[in-house]
Amino acid sequence: MAVVSVQQALSGAIAPGSEVTVRGWVRTRRDSGELCFVNVSDGSCFDPIQVVATAALGNFADEVRKLSSGCSVIATGTLAPSMGKGQRFELQATAIEVTGWVDDPLTYPMQPKQHSLEYLREYAHLRPRTNLFGAVTRIRHCLAQAVHRFFHEQGFYWISTPIITTSDAEGAGQMFRVSTLDLANLPRDGRGDVDFSRDFFGKETFLTVSGQLNVEAYCLALSKVYTFGPTFRAENSHTTRHLAEFWMIEPEIAFATLKEDADLAEAFLKYLFRAVLDERADDMAFIAERVEKTAISRLQAFIDAPFERIDYTEAVALLQKSGQKFDFPVEWGLDLQTEHERWLTEQHVGRPVVVMNYPEQIKAFYMRLNDDGRTVAAMDVLAPGIGEIIGGSQREERLDVLDARMAQFGLEPAHYGWYRDLRRYGSVPHAGFGLGFERLVVYTCGLANIRDAIPYPRAPGLATF
Amino acid sequence: MAVVSVQQALSGAIAPGSEVTVRGWVRTRRDSGELCFVNVSDGSCFDPIQVVATAALGNFADEVRKLSSGCSVIATGTLAPSMGKGQRFELQATAIEVTGWVDDPLTYPMQPKQHSLEYLREYAHLRPRTNLFGAVTRIRHCLAQAVHRFFHEQGFYWISTPIITTSDAEGAGQMFRVSTLDLANLPRDGRGDVDFSRDFFGKETFLTVSGQLNVEAYCLALSKVYTFGPTFRAENSHTTRHLAEFWMIEPEIAFATLKEDADLAEAFLKYLFRAVLDERADDMAFIAERVEKTAISRLQAFIDAPFERIDYTEAVALLQKSGQKFDFPVEWGLDLQTEHERWLTEQHVGRPVVVMNYPEQIKAFYMRLNDDGRTVAAMDVLAPGIGEIIGGSQREERLDVLDARMAQFGLEPAHYGWYRDLRRYGSVPHAGFGLGFERLVVYTCGLANIRDAIPYPRAPGLATF
Repeated sequence: MAVVSVQQALSGAIAPGSEVTVRGWVRTRRDSGELCFVNVSDGSCFDPIQVVATAALGNFADEVRKLSSGCSVIATGTLAPSMGKGQRFELQATAIEVTGWVDDPLTYPMQPKQHSLEYLREYAHLRPRTNLFGAVTRIRHCLAQAVHRFFHEQGFYWISTPIITTSDAEGAGQMFRVSTLDLANLPRDGRGDVDFSRDFFGKETFLTVSGQLNVEAYCLALSKVYTFGPTFRAENSHTTRHLAEFWMIEPEIAFATLKEDADLAEAFLKYLFRAVLDERADDMAFIAERVEKTAISRLQAFIDAPFERIDYTEAVALLQKSGQKFDFPVEWGLDLQTEHERWLTEQHVGRPVVVMNYPEQIKAFYMRLNDDGRTVAAMDVLAPGIGEIIGGSQREERLDVLDARMAQFGLEPAHYGWYRDLRRYGSVPHAGFGLGFERLVVYTCGLANIRDAIPYPRAPGLATF
Repeated sequence: MAVVSVQQALSGAIAPGSEVTVRGWVRTRRDSGELCFVNVSDGSCFDPIQVVATAALGNFADEVRKLSSGCSVIATGTLAPSMGKGQRFELQATAIEVTGWVDDPLTYPMQPKQHSLEYLREYAHLRPRTNLFGAVTRIRHCLAQAVHRFFHEQGFYWISTPIITTSDAEGAGQMFRVSTLDLANLPRDGRGDVDFSRDFFGKETFLTVSGQLNVEAYCLALSKVYTFGPTFRAENSHTTRHLAEFWMIEPEIAFATLKEDADLAEAFLKYLFRAVLDERADDMAFIAERVEKTAISRLQAFIDAPFERIDYTEAVALLQKSGQKFDFPVEWGLDLQTEHERWLTEQHVGRPVVVMNYPEQIKAFYMRLNDDGRTVAAMDVLAPGIGEIIGGSQREERLDVLDARMAQFGLEPAHYGWYRDLRRYGSVPHAGFGLGFERLVVYTCGLANIRDAIPYPRAPGLATF
């Protein structure tokens, strides 16, 4: 008698009449005369399997009839076509072993009803047992797998860039300090300042905000590389759109300009969404039913439509003559806000848009200065329903221009010796982009709060894990 | 005229006589009469391609003849069968564009000769251009892809567990503090202690040492899950075997005992090594030639041999009667040292060994107490040439036994409320293991120092990235 997953049992791949064992957690139990219907989920797919129990089971009255939501069971029986609605197969049980009961079923936090997302965030260890977070977890997995598969198929190599770092890739972001210094007895130098030479790495260290600068070194040796790892921002913006800890995907390609960068972003996003629609139809159907009506249709539209590409300068002109009232000003030299981005992609174009060539003063020092001297080869990919989903740029590969830009930003060249080396030794045009993985999950699953796109939602004060 | 990777050009998949463009970095240049042979690597595979230049090129004398190691070029020409040794194809150039020169070729740090590993660690941003680190990077990538592919094919879901955490999964390890408190003006509470309620998360936080406890929650909902992410240990053991920051793989399976855990570990490792031998034959041939003679044969032997399984108690007896002189004592109740592990796997069994059921007092609180009351269901997988490569256990699923173990270890139950919940609500036997990814890379590539298994080697004082 084979142990099978619920996914296998329901897939049709196992002949009806086969004796199988499934294992999982009870979602619901329903009694009907001398029968008992127990829905069992093992998380392998969206649907639970219906296990049909009869009084012929030795523990029918003592145990089966007492099963409640959350109990764990091992059910053995015959797989049979089901008469029930919405299910092709059921398990006619010959044995149900209860492996774990629920302490006080009335207070079990995951009652078989719809809980609010706020409530579920307080039960991060149990919410994966709900329909929604089971679905989000499987979709998230599907996206992560597709990320690795896409790059592998395209000849990219995965690089894990340092998490603990001394440099601030963005030249701006608030960073978390990493230290083993004893706060009760901080070592001091002669001037009374904290003596970081006594810290673990012999200098002041932080959590990385981006792996981009590091991965450029690998790009200029292996041509096509990507990172996929955690990054950190200690921003005190406790919005529904920001996380202190999030995973980032950062591909980097050599011998490439902003055009190839945009091509890559388009091919990449389409590949990911195709994978989700192909592989997680069950979960996406639930998302479309319960979370976001357009979840499936908007991914399909995303895949079908070629991205529009417009210059920042043109985008500003379009916004200015749109007749639309915006909260934030629209003016050449200012960054675009979400309301502007969403108007462009949703109202004006009606499909994803790549906005390119932003004013140099609002972008990072490493972005390549265009010939006009006023703009840099930066891009943002905007998507209907969310706004910016990808940000990227061609990197400044000319050492003299880079040095001038670093001076303009007040960066100390000595701290960037290795980065400058990449321009001294076989420099080539190269480009890349960054994509916040949770933002991708939020968009795919139609979630409103980014804390529902990570396995453990942690707002300040909620860091219990 | 198609742009192709060096891997594509050399693979035989492109018809000889085709006009193609390759792009990359010069490894070597050799002049022979009116010909110039330029080896170009783009990192897509181990071998560079030989580009043959003649005086017919407009920039032959001014540029091509001046190319040195590290210069970047775009070479266009005809793909032709090669007369040269060890290469099937070469590129007969019709144009060579130099995209980037090397500042002062005589001082370029990556001269075309063999550098010491110590030297290369100081040039982490350039060492990926060497044969060895190109190979290690591709093998590392191959292993990482195989990790995700194996679990995906087996129905596991990837979970990213928190990096910043309040709990210490091992109950022991030295942890890095994560904080945004201003060290120059530490907030104090009424008693003069540091007031962590003013820190970013409102409490004291650290970098995770393991995702295991967290991933158990997902295991008890989705049945088969795994983590693959960075973990941190602030251990002041600056050996060639330890890293402060490393990636860990932690699968967790529900309805499973130690036996299934060992089965999973065996299938997993064999899958990974098979992937490396199948997909990175070029790099492994170099490793076998230059780094570790047995690199290929030992992976093959690993794949071919069934793992042996012995109890810790039996292992101790075997070691005691081995007649071998060990530096560390062998006694029931003490942990096995690397010398013991290597004797077992290399001398005694001659293939991988799973040692199971260790004394409870030397293992973590969450490991399942066996019926003998003296041992826990823990395992270590030992491999010839390295010793321990995987550590795992069945987890204690009985709340009363877990509580007793936590009391024994002096752990505060209130800090583990969510972890105890998993035993209160549908508890099931479950098991998992942990595998340090860099350790796997070290073993696969026959490296002696674990700092050569990460993209950026960082010993204290070397944290320049």
